[in-house]
Amino acid sequence: MATTPYQQLEEEFRRLHAFRGALATLRWDAAVMMPRGSAEVRGEQLAALETECHAILTSPKVSRLIDRAHANAQGLEDWQVANLREMRRQRDHALATPNSLVSRLAKASARAEAHWLEARRTQRFADFAPHLAEVVALIRDRAALLGQHLSLAPYDALVDEFSPGVLTADIDGLFKALGRRLPALIRDAIEVQAATPPLPITGKFASAKQRALCVEAMKALGFPFDHGRLDESEHPFTEGMAGDLRITTRFEPGDPFHGLFAALHETGHAMYELGLPADWRDQPVGRNRGMVLEESQSLLIEMMIARSRPFLAFLKPHLEKHLGVSGPEWEVENLYRYLTQVHRGSLRADADEMTYQAHIMLRYELEKQLLDGSLAAADLPEAWNESAQSRLGLKPANDVEGCLQDVHWAVGRFGYFPAHALGGLIAIQLWEKLRSDVDTIDADVARGDFSGMFTWLRQNVHGVGAKMTVQDLIREATGRPLTAAPALRYFEAKYLEPR
Amino acid sequence: MATTPYQQLEEEFRRLHAFRGALATLRWDAAVMMPRGSAEVRGEQLAALETECHAILTSPKVSRLIDRAHANAQGLEDWQVANLREMRRQRDHALATPNSLVSRLAKASARAEAHWLEARRTQRFADFAPHLAEVVALIRDRAALLGQHLSLAPYDALVDEFSPGVLTADIDGLFKALGRRLPALIRDAIEVQAATPPLPITGKFASAKQRALCVEAMKALGFPFDHGRLDESEHPFTEGMAGDLRITTRFEPGDPFHGLFAALHETGHAMYELGLPADWRDQPVGRNRGMVLEESQSLLIEMMIARSRPFLAFLKPHLEKHLGVSGPEWEVENLYRYLTQVHRGSLRADADEMTYQAHIMLRYELEKQLLDGSLAAADLPEAWNESAQSRLGLKPANDVEGCLQDVHWAVGRFGYFPAHALGGLIAIQLWEKLRSDVDTIDADVARGDFSGMFTWLRQNVHGVGAKMTVQDLIREATGRPLTAAPALRYFEAKYLEPR
Repeated sequence: MATTPYQQLEEEFRRLHAFRGALATLRWDAAVMMPRGSAEVRGEQLAALETECHAILTSPKVSRLIDRAHANAQGLEDWQVANLREMRRQRDHALATPNSLVSRLAKASARAEAHWLEARRTQRFADFAPHLAEVVALIRDRAALLGQHLSLAPYDALVDEFSPGVLTADIDGLFKALGRRLPALIRDAIEVQAATPPLPITGKFASAKQRALCVEAMKALGFPFDHGRLDESEHPFTEGMAGDLRITTRFEPGDPFHGLFAALHETGHAMYELGLPADWRDQPVGRNRGMVLEESQSLLIEMMIARSRPFLAFLKPHLEKHLGVSGPEWEVENLYRYLTQVHRGSLRADADEMTYQAHIMLRYELEKQLLDGSLAAADLPEAWNESAQSRLGLKPANDVEGCLQDVHWAVGRFGYFPAHALGGLIAIQLWEKLRSDVDTIDADVARGDFSGMFTWLRQNVHGVGAKMTVQDLIREATGRPLTAAPALRYFEAKYLEPR
Repeated sequence: MATTPYQQLEEEFRRLHAFRGALATLRWDAAVMMPRGSAEVRGEQLAALETECHAILTSPKVSRLIDRAHANAQGLEDWQVANLREMRRQRDHALATPNSLVSRLAKASARAEAHWLEARRTQRFADFAPHLAEVVALIRDRAALLGQHLSLAPYDALVDEFSPGVLTADIDGLFKALGRRLPALIRDAIEVQAATPPLPITGKFASAKQRALCVEAMKALGFPFDHGRLDESEHPFTEGMAGDLRITTRFEPGDPFHGLFAALHETGHAMYELGLPADWRDQPVGRNRGMVLEESQSLLIEMMIARSRPFLAFLKPHLEKHLGVSGPEWEVENLYRYLTQVHRGSLRADADEMTYQAHIMLRYELEKQLLDGSLAAADLPEAWNESAQSRLGLKPANDVEGCLQDVHWAVGRFGYFPAHALGGLIAIQLWEKLRSDVDTIDADVARGDFSGMFTWLRQNVHGVGAKMTVQDLIREATGRPLTAAPALRYFEAKYLEPR
């Protein structure tokens, strides 16, 4: 049977998809089920599969097929053209970094991570600095090579991996508009909220009860437990794909919302996977539109939906049923105040959605400076603390709460942080449009009906897969390019409302 | 860096080993953890990995390297020579069946399995017969091709997959010697045992308690829970390899021994894996010596060790502790009588170790006749029932309890059954020698010390890996070729002893 170059490419990427699915299950197993001593054996299996995936993407055969498919692209449909573009994109990313650099980076990152851990223990940043500098130098090489392959500036090439098609110029514009208002917004929100502080939430809540609550909330959102699981792990995550979705969370006995909101966040990821175009599920164009969009979908559920009065009205009877709680602190209005508190803190991981943006801006600025050489690794603590003062209005008590709080730079993850901030901004812009299109949304959510919301998201976001760029997707969905304006309106309405 | 053809082969088989390890985890997950609806997605992943494994084994590159390594074999050590032989053996098995036949067999088997299920429901063997005939015809083709590649008679080539190097002539000799005595042994054992029937064991035993009992017994045997797990599944199995061993069992609330003995059986498999030569663990020569040896190791633990008075003396306090039981029926002598009962039954799966041999002889004869054409699929029920009468002394009540009881032939698994009988005979012959070499074994087992036993097994069986043929391994370990004599002595001593 004669097949076209394009059809042969689909076959190659179908195989790649199956291997990636296998990798997802092996990673889930490693985090959730695997005996502690089995890490070495598992590492060999993961490495063999990852090498095979890389080999498929970088094979001369695939490159030849891409060239030939491009030369005969006139017969292809829209989706096929977009698929071919995404195939090329994945190939370019894979080809750009030579194996020797991959291997040097892996070694330098492993060293740097070990010294990062040690520096956190000893509180001596200086011992970590040379290892960070080594990683930065290698990432600079990687960014240059990646930039050449993708015809992008080096830092833009790093950003592209997590936020496809988003440029430094876009981020600068967004952060400038947002950053201008943010310090005042944070200050005002804290002042407004101080007038009506929530009653504290205390108690001990067994994991089994918290789990039952999570399952009920996830079912209401539409998580398909016949094609997915909820388990526990050290760090919450989502693995797998439509057909076999694996979510994890972590329960804190003293905080019934920690595990629940993590599970809701992950359910946002899962629902995105579930809504991807089914006909293209094993092709690049049928996958999600990068981490930035993934993050927008988890934040939309966790921040916009779950931290709202309608959702808490829906949740209240389930809290009472599963946790056996009652009293004034469990009333909707108190829960809402409790779960939407703005606070200044040094740690990104503990931040509310508004100060979170400031945490990312700080990292974005500093990682660009590290990469362009204007900031030496050794000088990071000072620069960090200065930026924290101006962005967050505080000075970290020490480097563990400052520039040593995240592992990302030690392991070479540069260009990654902006996707988190942008994910939040995208979520808000989509949410604003969704609310105006689905005008029954508050009443729907309050009675646990999320179908209208997900219908909108499937039509406008999930079902698009990777067919468009991030920017086009947002423009098509909301009628406007991505701007900071919806976020400013949303923050103001949510956090400055008189209570 | 210049590498020899042999070294390059090791690299290829290391990759193969990693993929097989990934497959093991994915299969375990499918049976134990996977949501019901995810079978389709998982099927694609398994197929992609199995195809890749087949592609490695059948690649022109590997065949070329095997030829070149053979031509330069004078520099290789013992283990390397044996490894090269096993590489060739795996390659020959993989190459022998063309893809078109694999695909026709897969389809015919799927059809036959569906009709087998249906025929069990309707009790109409005739509806299944033509589908069985189709599978038999394809297996005949496969056996002929495999035989050509391996220079073996067709049926021997099928046997070789499960019992490497064992020939029909060997099996015929063993079954002849055993079969001559077996009907009388079974009759006499039943008569002797009837004089002192055990008190019945009844009660309800929660899974959690049965599990705790299993874990304690497995720990005593040396199962490494830091590199392995015990879970539950529909059918007990062992997956994985040293470094990450996954055992499953199934608990029956009314029978505290069902789940325990299945777990002990699987622990026998696991301990074999664990004792394989560590230096060769990712090479063919470092793997187990086929299903026949695997089965010998599980049966040695389940039948010879666990169904013995010393083991039951060790087990008794743990039964009392975990199940909260006491009374005359829980005394060692009664448990021993209860767990070593010989009985005539139609079903292989319910058979004791002695009548089991007769169940297999029946299948062995009939499957050879099906393959050589002397028995038509349509005539199977009659032939089965006749053989059951002479071998087992009974006529099955219907075909569901007769020739429709096993799925194996429907799915094309011919040459497989003998490995079960031979595994039992090998276990007994090893056990006889082990007892004479480790003369403290009964006292050791009674106090839960299995170290001497496993030291012997590692030296003589596990640590050999696939370095020798089955026959040579037994000769080296016991000083004699495999014969039926130890089994006849063992059956007589165990089942005809006056009680």
